[in-house]
This record gives sequence, C-alpha cells and structure tokens, in this order.
Amino acid sequence: MRAIIKARAGRGLELAERVRPEPGPRDALIRMNAVGICGTDVHIYDWDAWSAGRIKPPVIVGHEFVGVVEAVGRDVAHIEAGTRISGEGHITCGHCRFCRTGRGHICRDVKIIGIDRDGCFAEYMAMPADNLWPVPDEISDRHAAVFDPLGNAMHSVNATEVSGRSVLVIGAGAVGLFAVAVARASGASRVLVSEPNATKRQIALKVGADIVFDPFNDGIDGPILEATDGLGPEVVFEMSGATAGLTSAFRLVQNGGDVVLLGLPAEHVAVNWSEDIIFKGITIHAVSGRRMFDTWYRSQQFLLGGRVDIDPILTHDIAMEDFEKGFQALLAGEAVKVTMRV
Amino acid sequence: MRAIIKARAGRGLELAERVRPEPGPRDALIRMNAVGICGTDVHIYDWDAWSAGRIKPPVIVGHEFVGVVEAVGRDVAHIEAGTRISGEGHITCGHCRFCRTGRGHICRDVKIIGIDRDGCFAEYMAMPADNLWPVPDEISDRHAAVFDPLGNAMHSVNATEVSGRSVLVIGAGAVGLFAVAVARASGASRVLVSEPNATKRQIALKVGADIVFDPFNDGIDGPILEATDGLGPEVVFEMSGATAGLTSAFRLVQNGGDVVLLGLPAEHVAVNWSEDIIFKGITIHAVSGRRMFDTWYRSQQFLLGGRVDIDPILTHDIAMEDFEKGFQALLAGEAVKVTMRV
Amino acid sequence: MRAIIKARAGRGLELAERVRPEPGPRDALIRMNAVGICGTDVHIYDWDAWSAGRIKPPVIVGHEFVGVVEAVGRDVAHIEAGTRISGEGHITCGHCRFCRTGRGHICRDVKIIGIDRDGCFAEYMAMPADNLWPVPDEISDRHAAVFDPLGNAMHSVNATEVSGRSVLVIGAGAVGLFAVAVARASGASRVLVSEPNATKRQIALKVGADIVFDPFNDGIDGPILEATDGLGPEVVFEMSGATAGLTSAFRLVQNGGDVVLLGLPAEHVAVNWSEDIIFKGITIHAVSGRRMFDTWYRSQQFLLGGRVDIDPILTHDIAMEDFEKGFQALLAGEAVKVTMRV
Amino acid sequence: MRAIIKARAGRGLELAERVRPEPGPRDALIRMNAVGICGTDVHIYDWDAWSAGRIKPPVIVGHEFVGVVEAVGRDVAHIEAGTRISGEGHITCGHCRFCRTGRGHICRDVKIIGIDRDGCFAEYMAMPADNLWPVPDEISDRHAAVFDPLGNAMHSVNATEVSGRSVLVIGAGAVGLFAVAVARASGASRVLVSEPNATKRQIALKVGADIVFDPFNDGIDGPILEATDGLGPEVVFEMSGATAGLTSAFRLVQNGGDVVLLGLPAEHVAVNWSEDIIFKGITIHAVSGRRMFDTWYRSQQFLLGGRVDIDPILTHDIAMEDFEKGFQALLAGEAVKVTMRV
Repeated sequence: MRAIIKARAGRGLELAERVRPEPGPRDALIRMNAVGICGTDVHIYDWDAWSAGRIKPPVIVGHEFVGVVEAVGRDVAHIEAGTRISGEGHITCGHCRFCRTGRGHICRDVKIIGIDRDGCFAEYMAMPADNLWPVPDEISDRHAAVFDPLGNAMHSVNATEVSGRSVLVIGAGAVGLFAVAVARASGASRVLVSEPNATKRQIALKVGADIVFDPFNDGIDGPILEATDGLGPEVVFEMSGATAGLTSAFRLVQNGGDVVLLGLPAEHVAVNWSEDIIFKGITIHAVSGRRMFDTWYRSQQFLLGGRVDIDPILTHDIAMEDFEKGFQALLAGEAVKVTMRV
Repeated sequence: MRAIIKARAGRGLELAERVRPEPGPRDALIRMNAVGICGTDVHIYDWDAWSAGRIKPPVIVGHEFVGVVEAVGRDVAHIEAGTRISGEGHITCGHCRFCRTGRGHICRDVKIIGIDRDGCFAEYMAMPADNLWPVPDEISDRHAAVFDPLGNAMHSVNATEVSGRSVLVIGAGAVGLFAVAVARASGASRVLVSEPNATKRQIALKVGADIVFDPFNDGIDGPILEATDGLGPEVVFEMSGATAGLTSAFRLVQNGGDVVLLGLPAEHVAVNWSEDIIFKGITIHAVSGRRMFDTWYRSQQFLLGGRVDIDPILTHDIAMEDFEKGFQALLAGEAVKVTMRV
Repeated sequence: MRAIIKARAGRGLELAERVRPEPGPRDALIRMNAVGICGTDVHIYDWDAWSAGRIKPPVIVGHEFVGVVEAVGRDVAHIEAGTRISGEGHITCGHCRFCRTGRGHICRDVKIIGIDRDGCFAEYMAMPADNLWPVPDEISDRHAAVFDPLGNAMHSVNATEVSGRSVLVIGAGAVGLFAVAVARASGASRVLVSEPNATKRQIALKVGADIVFDPFNDGIDGPILEATDGLGPEVVFEMSGATAGLTSAFRLVQNGGDVVLLGLPAEHVAVNWSEDIIFKGITIHAVSGRRMFDTWYRSQQFLLGGRVDIDPILTHDIAMEDFEKGFQALLAGEAVKVTMRV
Repeated sequence: MRAIIKARAGRGLELAERVRPEPGPRDALIRMNAVGICGTDVHIYDWDAWSAGRIKPPVIVGHEFVGVVEAVGRDVAHIEAGTRISGEGHITCGHCRFCRTGRGHICRDVKIIGIDRDGCFAEYMAMPADNLWPVPDEISDRHAAVFDPLGNAMHSVNATEVSGRSVLVIGAGAVGLFAVAVARASGASRVLVSEPNATKRQIALKVGADIVFDPFNDGIDGPILEATDGLGPEVVFEMSGATAGLTSAFRLVQNGGDVVLLGLPAEHVAVNWSEDIIFKGITIHAVSGRRMFDTWYRSQQFLLGGRVDIDPILTHDIAMEDFEKGFQALLAGEAVKVTMRV
C-alpha cells in the first residue's frame, strides 16, 4: 500500500510502498478516506529538536483521519466492517491511574499514532477498535478528518467558562482558529485575536472573531485593554507557544480570570508570577490532547447542530500524492489546515 | 406623581397619585423611563394565594425598570445625577452570612421592590444606590428595562454547562424564552422547547430553538428521546413551575445530566427519586434571583456583543396609562413581555 | 464449591454446592477470602418488591469481597495469579456514552454481580479482570472486603465540599456511618447525625459525629438549627431513603447549601420545591455507585493514611456457613456491617 | 496612644506616641487586645525593595489583630461597642467589577491596613465596620489575632480538593504551617512538607505532616516520588516564593494535579511549561488574600470544632513593647508566628 513515511533522520518525508498491516485481536483495520496535516507533522517533516528526540524512523506519519472499517480482530464485537469512522490517535495503556480515572488524555504510557507507531497517512492503518469514533452520515469526510484538532479546541474552551465573558485567543493556527469558532459559538461576548499572519487574521474574522490584532505592529496591550473596559480579557487562550504569547497572556488577563495553555513553548519561559499571576488570583488550565471521549461527543454535536462554520479554516484539499505541496504551503504560512484525499 | 398601585386586597391594580419619595442617605432617586411587567406582577394583579400572603397594600408594584438618576443621598459618591441606570430589585441586608459571602441573591432578609416595599411602576422611585446598574448608551431602554428577567435566564444557564450539550427548556414564558436565547448563544448543540402556547413556540423558534413541542398534543417523550439519540437531553431547564413540567424534567434528563429549576410549583410535587434522580446520578441546580452582579455583567456583555436577539420576546410596548391592556394580554397568553413607557 | 444462593422466588437464602466457574478470555477467577453483607443483600433475602422484580433465581448473591486471583483468562496481561484483590461489582458495557466519558457508574447497561449474575458469596467467582482492585498488604481483609460501601460514602462526600462546613447525615446504616467517618476526616466542622437506632447513634459518635439525634423522640429541627446558628447545615447527606429523611433534608439545609442523595426511597415522595429548594438556591447531588476508579484510589489512600477508623462500623465477623446469624442480626438492627470469612 | 511605626525610609521600626484616631461615619474604633506579626511586617522592618516602593512613612504597621469595639460611627447600626472582633485588613473599594461580584480579595483599588494606611500595632485603630468579624467567646485572643493568615491557608486549601489526595507543602512558614494543619484536617491522605529550617519541620510534624524533608540536604524528588507511588503528589501548595520551590512544584506534581501558588517570588522565574505543566494537564490556582468572608466562616468553624491545633505554630507571645525581640526571632528563623499583647 502507499504511505507517507519518515524514512530516516533528517528533513523531509517520502511516499513509499508499505505492507498492509494486520489487525490484532482487539484492533480494527481501517481503509483511509481522508487525512489532515497537523503542525506536529510539519515539525516531523522539518526534523526539529523534538522530532529528532522522539521519532524512530522508519515510521508512517499522520494522526488525523477518517476512513472505513475494513475488518476487525477476533475480540471486537461492538463495531463492524463498513462503518465510517474517525478515531482518537492517543493509544492509552488502560491500566495506569489516569486511565482508570477517566483521564486517558494524560496517560503516562501513551503511544501516539504517526509518532510512536505507524500513523494514518496511508491507504490502511490498524489500531485498537476502542479508539474508533463512528461518524454520522451528515458529517463530511473533510470535517471528520479534523475531529482531532477540533477536539483540542473544544477541550480548551470547555476547560473554563466563556459564556458572557470576554476572550483573547493568542495564535491563530488551526487549533487557535478552531478555538475562536468554538468560543464564539459558546457565548464568548467578545472574541479578540492576536496573530501576526494577515491571512490567518482574516480567517479569524470569518469564523467568529470580533477584533484582530497584529501583535508586532499594532501593540496589543492598548487595544485589548480598550476593548475590555481597561480590565483585560476574562479568558485568554494561549495557542501560539511563543514566549511573547505566554507573557502577554498573563500580563493582559483580568484579575480573577482564566488562562488556558495549549501552545507548547520550545524553551523555558520566565514570567512575573507575583504581579501577573498571584496577586491577580487567576486560574491556569493546562490542556493536553482531548478528553476521551467527552470532547468527541461535544464536537460532533456542534457539527451536527451547525453551530460552527469551520470551512474557512480548511484552506487546502489535495491528493495524498501531492503532500509536498501541502507541507510547503503550511511552512510558508499560506495554509492553515490541509486535508488530503487518500 | 403617577403610580400603579395595589390599593387593597383583591383583584386588579389602579393608577393613582402618590407622593414623590425622598432618597435616604445611601439612596438614589430615579426618574423612570420604562418598566417591564413580570409574571409576578400578574400574580399580584390576580391576587393569588401567594400574593395574598405576602403583599401588604397599599404598595406601588413593579421591579423591572430603566431610568435616570435624579438625585442621590448624602453618602452616595460613586454615582451621580444624570446617569441612566437599571437596578437590582432585591434589596439585601448586607450583613447575613449569605450577603457576606457574595450570595446576596439568597439573603435571608431580602426586601423586594414592588413586593415588600414600593416598586418601579411610577414616575419616581428611591432605592439604595448600591443596587443601581449604569447602562451604556448602546443598550436601548426596552432592553435595559428587562435586565432583571434576562438575568434570571443568564443565572440559570450559567448554573451548569451547555456548550456542546443538548438542552430542553420546559415552559416558554419570558424567562424561559430568554433562557432559550442565552442557551443557544452559549453553545447548546440542540435546543428543544416544550410549551403548550403556539405563539410562544413560534417565538422560541425565532430566538434559537431547534425543535418545539406542544406537550399536551405531541407527547414529548417520544420526540425528545428521538432528538437525543434515545438518551434524553443533557440539560433540562424547568421554567414552568407546572407539576408535569417537573416530573418530565426528571423523567427525560439524561443519566449524569443537569436539571435547572427556576419555575415555582404552587404545591408540593411528588417525583420518582430513585429511578429518575438517584440511579441517574444527576445534579439539580435550584436558581433564585440573579447573582449580584455577575449575571448583570454577563447579560450586558451579551447585549453589547449582539449575541442574543431578544426583540421577538418583547411582544408589547405600551404607555403606563394603558397598563390594563398589558395585563390582559399577559393573562390571555397573547403577550410574553410587556414594557411600558413611563 | 460452596455458595450462598437465592434458589427460588421467596424469602431466605441457602448454602448450596455449585460448579466452580471458568474465567472467560478477559476474566479473572478469584478465590474468596472474605465478603461483606450489604443492605441490598438483606432486601434480596427478604424478597421485597424490588428484589422480586429484578432477581432471576437461581443466583449466587453478594458483591462486597476480597480474595486472591487464582487464574486469569487468555487476554489478561496486567494482573496475575496470586494477587490479592477487591473489585468493582458493577460490570459496565464499556461502549455507551457514559462508559466512553469516564462515567461507568451510570452505564446504561450495567450488570451487577450478585444481582444480575452470580456474585461473591462463594468460594470462587469469575469476573472481568478490568474490574479488579489490587490491595496493598497494609490493608486487612476485613477492610478490603468493604471497599464497595466505603466507596459509596467517599463518592457521596466528594460530590460536594465539606471542609470547614457543617454537615448533617440522615440515616446511620453502614454507608451513612462510613459517610460520617469520611466527612469528619475531610474537614466537616460539625457532624450531626439523625438516626432512630441507639446502637447506630453510639457508633456514629465513635467514628466522628459531634452530636446525634433520635428523629422520632428528639425532634430534629430545633436541635439542628441550634447547632447551626439558626441557618441549618450547609451539607446534608440523605442516606436513609425514608420519606421523612428526604423532606427533612430539604427543610433543614441552609440557603445555598448542598443535599447529597444516596438513600433510595421505595415510593414517590412529595416535597416543597418552591420554599425548601428553589428559593434557597441549593444544589442537589444524586449519587449512584462509585466513581471508577477515582473513589477506589481515594478510599485506599484514606485507609493507608489511617485517616478513618472504620472498625466500629464492622460490628460482626462470622463464617460464611453462619450467614443466617448475620442476616438476622442485620434485620434486627443489631448489626451494621457483617463480614464473613469464606 | 502607643504605636509601632515605620517613621522613615530605612531599616527598623520604633515605638512612638500617636494621636488616637477618630472613626468616620461608617467606621468603628477598635481598642486592641492582641496582634500578630506577619512576614510582610518583617519585610517592612527590613525595608526590602517591595517595601521601599510601596510604604509611605510615617505609618503604623500591622494588619493581624483582635480587639474590642470602643465606638462606632454615625452610620453603623449592625455592630456595637463592646463587641470583641477581628477584621479583614483589605479595605476594598466596593464598586469595581471584582467587588461587585463577591471577589473583593482581588479588588483593583484595595487599601491594606499597616501598608497603605495606619495599621493595628497600636492601642487603637479605626477602620470600616463592614470589615469587622465578631469573635465568639470560645476563641482565644491569640487564635483570633491570627484569623488573617489562617484564612490565607484556608483560602489556599479550598482552592482545590484535598480529601483523599496526597499533598506536598513547599515552605513551612506560618501560612505554610497553617496550610499543613488545614489540609490534614480536610482529609489530605498524605501530607509531605519541604522546608530547610529544622524547627519548622518539627512543628510541621506536630500539626499534621506525615513526612518532612530538608530540600537542601535530602534531595526531595526521590523521597517524594517514593511516597506517592512514583506519580508525585496530587496537590502542591507553593508557600515559599523561592525559585526552587516554584520549579519543584511543577516538576513534582502528578499528571492532572493541582498547584496552588501563594508564596510571592521576588523575581521572574522560568519554568518548563511544556513538560512540567502543559503535557501534564495540571491546573494552577493563584491565591491572593482571603475570600471575604467565606474563608472567615470556615476558619471560625474549624476553630470552634477543634479541627485544627494551631498552638504549635504560635511560637512566641510577647508584650508590644518588646516588639524588637519578636522581629529578631523571626529574622533568625527561631520564631514562626509571634503574637503581641497590646
């Protein structure tokens, strides 16, 4: 079968022929319809420090997908061949304290598809059937392919309250933009977005932002305080992972407010704990992965109810063979979310 | 000055001349612009059992209002004459355990304007300046006049989580309809409404309901279960106070769901605690009044951000002199929210 | 093997010989050390209306246990023979919405051991290995045998906040008494207990109650209000299932307080929703089963840390052959928790 | 009257004669019985960078106190002369968004007694009557004098859940030790304490710690992981303000756990956000001041119920004239909490 693989240490990916996997007793074999390229895949393409430390080539990459169950293993009774599914790419151990308390998203021994084992940028993939998510007919392949990053945004927004509160989203990549859409649809009374890329700022306005800022040219403190009665936003979503994003989040958030952290800083970042965090009495919510499967239910209900319009975020749709074009568009900041037909 | 008063025990209200009140040292004197008629006012008009037990005539009725500060008492420094304001009609003691812990809405010694002391259906009213809410210019008098019932709905919706969850609202009176609008704007993924009055069902659809039911003719269990994958709604708002509303709320709510109670049953109601409540592991949130002033901030931010369209709920606008028409329209079920120009 | 069974419809239980079960692929076979008799087992002995509707004889009864893994099925890798274990008696479907969101305790298709399938009052029992709970050496067999009802109490106390708050426990059966111990150890500033049985009141005092009342002779309202500054307790645990318990819980709870419901009323119960619930702005938490496995971790940590002394609650320890004595002591109100050596 | 004042910029304090204050219309005049020396007072004595930037000499210092109402202003009706009281030293504006939503502890315009205006190390002090806290006879003067720091600890512990969870307290100064006592009394299943001062470690053991560590000599990571099944503590209270305390808190806390921050770092501190915070999915609660007056009620109920033994923390009791001895003992690390008789 065809698959996109990281064949060896170093930059780039390649299209290769691989043996179609066999499902284990509790696995399902999935024939892919469509997949999405995540920022993590771009890091793997780029072979940054994190990738070099974590990825053991050769491995098939990719973890955002929709497909159809082709076959199931001996012990799988609750799902059958022919079912259209997406799925959670975090394969949890099932037995640690976190898995046994409904918190598999912070499992200590998680294996992620496309990172720690073969992923979904392939014609077929085998994975535990318990990770699958049956997709209703009303949801398109492109939407189902991005359940994973939409779920990150849903998890972030549900980490705190946004209804009737002012919100600042720092960083309008794919997850940041999904967060804009979800926060707006969840009642955020004012949605402010800080993002240096003009294309992404335009998309932010389309999916629900009220005001957008270029943090490098606009200076964000003045306009943001002006838009929030001088008090700062009640909720800040830090989705950039940038040092300036993190320090701005704490400097700007309102007393008693909430900061949700999802963007991953590459380095240690120093902040003013006393003035910007402790005296303000804020709460900080660190968000990793997606709640299994609470965020999946909520995301699906949002899509079925037409509560969010995510199409402006899905900027590119290409064939899997053209993957280089997709990665280049992402690296150039021209694309936000690229889906690929398999 | 002119005022609408309950002059004596018995049905009806009357327009009368009353002496303009003098503000005390910590009071403000308010010149009214507009007022809203609440269901409670209709009960007082009707002189039901509750009214007969609580109201001591003669008293000026009414507690929903917007006006302009005419003068302030000796000790009032933070608000000045000329400010347009609405206000919280619950005058709290300030010293009980509930007041001292930010929960004035359940103060043990609360006095309500228009019930326990003179209210706002008058050209002027005096009340504690700490109860006032300055209104931005962008909010119209009609909207500002209904901050109180909109706040009840906001308090109800904020009592639990609705983002990405299915919601059933039982009873589409004014507060029920405000709750429909607020729940929809706060991300409820599906909003179902049960209401026997066809006019109110139509308004429910206009302000955000996805599906409406006539509980007497449609039979609600079948359609509601069908609309919620056979599991029932995740959140139920009981806004009717009807016996059947209460028992339906518990019978239909999903396992692990939330029931928010705001409607006031006139009598004791028996429910199936074991099957409908305890085995289901649900949570019940009783809502009284409005959180001071958290719900005011959120309601205002909703209005300023244009997140809700409440105009379809404000069915009638009349002059205070025509109050009889307003009460008759409400009693006939033709009106939902009647505002009066003073 | 020997087992205590409900052989046929009607009162009583009997000791019988049964075939030792074979574990399925994902099961473990357990050799029992000790078991506990639950109030539910007494209902089954008694053959009350609930039992007659639910139990399909013949069935081995019992669901509180500690034993040693004798053998495991083909697909069990995370636990091995020789491990001492207790276990969760609710066997969940694993695939419904509740199971998929970490809420197996409200699974729609739960099967309970000793009720819907053979239970633990036997020399051996087979059940899913995922339900087992390895027990540290520091915890005795008698304590491990009651992890289940101690978990009900832990689930109840963790449903709300008790630290620095006044607590009333209505009904001092085994779970009520465990709740007394857990609430006291969790910082309840005053623990009041209402219980008609004098023996149980004495045990309540031993495990942490500050004041105990006989609701039939003392009249509870006066003394309870006196003990709570006239405001009523901030948290009420209704563990009796009695009609008077339920109505007292709502009548007495403080404004803004919490009522936790665990006792199961046999019939519909009417309460004063407006005065006792809605105007008070309280929150009601319905508790069913035990959070898997959050309450198990917490209960174990409580036992390991010596935070609770539950020995006074474990009033009787008998051999399984003497089960009649245990049931008679429970029916007579002489025993609270009876454990049996297998 | 006699008072301890910061007379001018620079190190030290002095005993001086000052004019007895006159209460304003909403004030009470208090005759002091006893006061407590806070770490903040030691900073003011020391004239550190923070003090030099904030304090405007001359000012009477001190904010922990108990006394008797000597007289009340014209508009004070709810409290009368002769009442024994403690009081909240944060004088809030009453009109900002935070004050209007029950969050006066994060008021934007707070004035603190002994810092921004004259404090309580004096024979008399005048302050708003709404800030006073009547003290029951059962509570001694020494206990009532430390309601303020005990409240900081109560606020910290109530910021998250500790019942049945493992807890690490970093820094065993007075508030840290109060937190040890409150966490233990609130059901923390294991209380670990990291503190370099041997005397304070001994007190920690007396008030509820299970294990104490010297972070400089013991190396805390190994022993703490060993005491928590290799997972780290579920809750960490950072009460030291030290750089190493902050980084240890995040490095050690369990996945999905809670970090409560009260200690104030003097400088910006860099932490590993990705590995120690975001991937772990933790929640961080910043705690400032005391919830008015929720923490006062809970602290009082703890003291009345005898739930905590705080006497080992109150290491020194001296006459106000001997204040130098108290400050020297605190600076030398010999004293934890010094109370002074006025």
